[in-house]
Amino acid sequence: MNFNMDVSNHDLMIGLDLGGTKILGLVVDRNAQVYARIQVPTPRVSEQIENQVLSVLREMLESCSSKGARIIAIGIGIPGYVNPETGVVIGAGNLGIENLPLRKIVFDSFSIQTHVVHDVRAAALGETMFGAGRGKNYLGYVNIGTGISVGLVLDGKIYNGAASRAGEFGHIRITKDGPLCSCGSRGCLEALASGPAVAGRINNAILNGRKSLITDLIANDGAEVKGEIVAEAAKLGDQLALDVIDETAEYLALSIGSLINVLDLESIIIGGGLANMGDLLISPIRNKLAKYLLAEYKDNVSVLPAELGSDSGAIGAAIASCIELGQQTN
Amino acid sequence: MNFNMDVSNHDLMIGLDLGGTKILGLVVDRNAQVYARIQVPTPRVSEQIENQVLSVLREMLESCSSKGARIIAIGIGIPGYVNPETGVVIGAGNLGIENLPLRKIVFDSFSIQTHVVHDVRAAALGETMFGAGRGKNYLGYVNIGTGISVGLVLDGKIYNGAASRAGEFGHIRITKDGPLCSCGSRGCLEALASGPAVAGRINNAILNGRKSLITDLIANDGAEVKGEIVAEAAKLGDQLALDVIDETAEYLALSIGSLINVLDLESIIIGGGLANMGDLLISPIRNKLAKYLLAEYKDNVSVLPAELGSDSGAIGAAIASCIELGQQTN
Repeated sequence: MNFNMDVSNHDLMIGLDLGGTKILGLVVDRNAQVYARIQVPTPRVSEQIENQVLSVLREMLESCSSKGARIIAIGIGIPGYVNPETGVVIGAGNLGIENLPLRKIVFDSFSIQTHVVHDVRAAALGETMFGAGRGKNYLGYVNIGTGISVGLVLDGKIYNGAASRAGEFGHIRITKDGPLCSCGSRGCLEALASGPAVAGRINNAILNGRKSLITDLIANDGAEVKGEIVAEAAKLGDQLALDVIDETAEYLALSIGSLINVLDLESIIIGGGLANMGDLLISPIRNKLAKYLLAEYKDNVSVLPAELGSDSGAIGAAIASCIELGQQTN
Repeated sequence: MNFNMDVSNHDLMIGLDLGGTKILGLVVDRNAQVYARIQVPTPRVSEQIENQVLSVLREMLESCSSKGARIIAIGIGIPGYVNPETGVVIGAGNLGIENLPLRKIVFDSFSIQTHVVHDVRAAALGETMFGAGRGKNYLGYVNIGTGISVGLVLDGKIYNGAASRAGEFGHIRITKDGPLCSCGSRGCLEALASGPAVAGRINNAILNGRKSLITDLIANDGAEVKGEIVAEAAKLGDQLALDVIDETAEYLALSIGSLINVLDLESIIIGGGLANMGDLLISPIRNKLAKYLLAEYKDNVSVLPAELGSDSGAIGAAIASCIELGQQTN
């Protein structure tokens, strides 16, 4: 692990973003300045994840120690339900983890204060304090990828809900019927606007004979329909790509409008895989949102892309661990 | 004003619910025990409302004083946007009030700590502490009347939102099209499941030749379609009434399901005019809700009618004033 600055005698935190495919570890300070990073694949066998996490942390801690830096806290972001008080991962479907006392395991190994937090909520906190949401106290970080969820920051704090399960934005119903969702219901936002939903609509259109540049782009790439390919086709003016993006933006705008109307939010930040489309997706969401908002919100709610990009979860987890420690962030 | 118990040397609060048609004043203690009540019509001329409020309060305070009770705080519930910190009514459309510094006006008149709060949020607090939501920390009080709104209690506290405008549950979109709503959008919950929406669907069906007992009930009553009449017809087995209630319950269940999935709530309490239908409306909501909820909520979210009935707003406002004072409630 290489450091991009002198860190001797610095009080720093480690932020770990434990994703479905990779584990990202960052060494950061209270200003969310990143001093070093490491990335390793997430083991496919869930029993090996715990050891991989400990091994990454050990390597990071040894590097920090050798450079004279002090690690005062560790924050770990998890794509699943976490009890923020006990640090137990209640369930993380993508990782195959259930009832894992991750905080205790990490603390017992390194004797460093550890905080475990939902990854999207961590990203929401990171963006609120050091990204696109700076200065806001009420915002939703909408993560659009394989699933759709929202990390809510209410009154300046991460909102967890009664049993730490809040944020299932993908499972608000935006139509009584509509396509079947993975949750078993119909008409969920996730079944209409997630990465797989977008790919599904494009595949269907092509199977039904619709001409599209995407057909060639997939053939060249030797891969399946993905956000990047849809974005590339849209930039080349492909009508199918543009239509599907427009429709997706409509579903997202409608749902985001409802969220703002009920929760009186100041800002929406869009992150996750599909957000890599950037303004191609975010501009139409912004334009369509006006018609779904109550009049009082029309001129003063911002919709912005995530600024911290794929670092937001790890940075947010580190910052959350610092707050948990009772230390002031800047 | 008559007292139903001896109140000499008691520390009590006044809760005032300033509604569109009536002003309800209650004298309550920290256990939400009601000792006396008064009700007067709300003046139709908005400029007279302020004087009517002061006159009701003066009468209540004189009665309390003559019985030897001490009023330690006044809470006022308002159907509109209130800045809870300054006690200014930013806007209350139904009352024709705008930018009224109500807390200051009341405090200047009586020198008693005064707290002004959104009426539905006050009701939510009242139900959480002393009604159907006892023991819960995360709940939504859904008020279904002329409009539809939700008072949210999150982490045990009233949730106001960024600019104290939270709770516009009537303006979540449950279908992309649908009937026009008063807000100018289409497909809002309020345009499908409020009192006027229910009446509108019944009127349309009757105009289109559908036979219903409601026709006779309206003729006998000499009035328009109201919740009570629909409920009466449904109890007599009228198919139109039953169909419309069923459809309304479906829209409400769908929306409530989305709310629970996003906010991880423990309980939903149903109040407001349409809730007077009781189990006729609440049972089908409860039954239909399961299919809109994520699996983890199916067995542990309760849907209950408001227990405090039409007193919930005034009781909640009184309790909020007591909390604001830093006094413990029981």
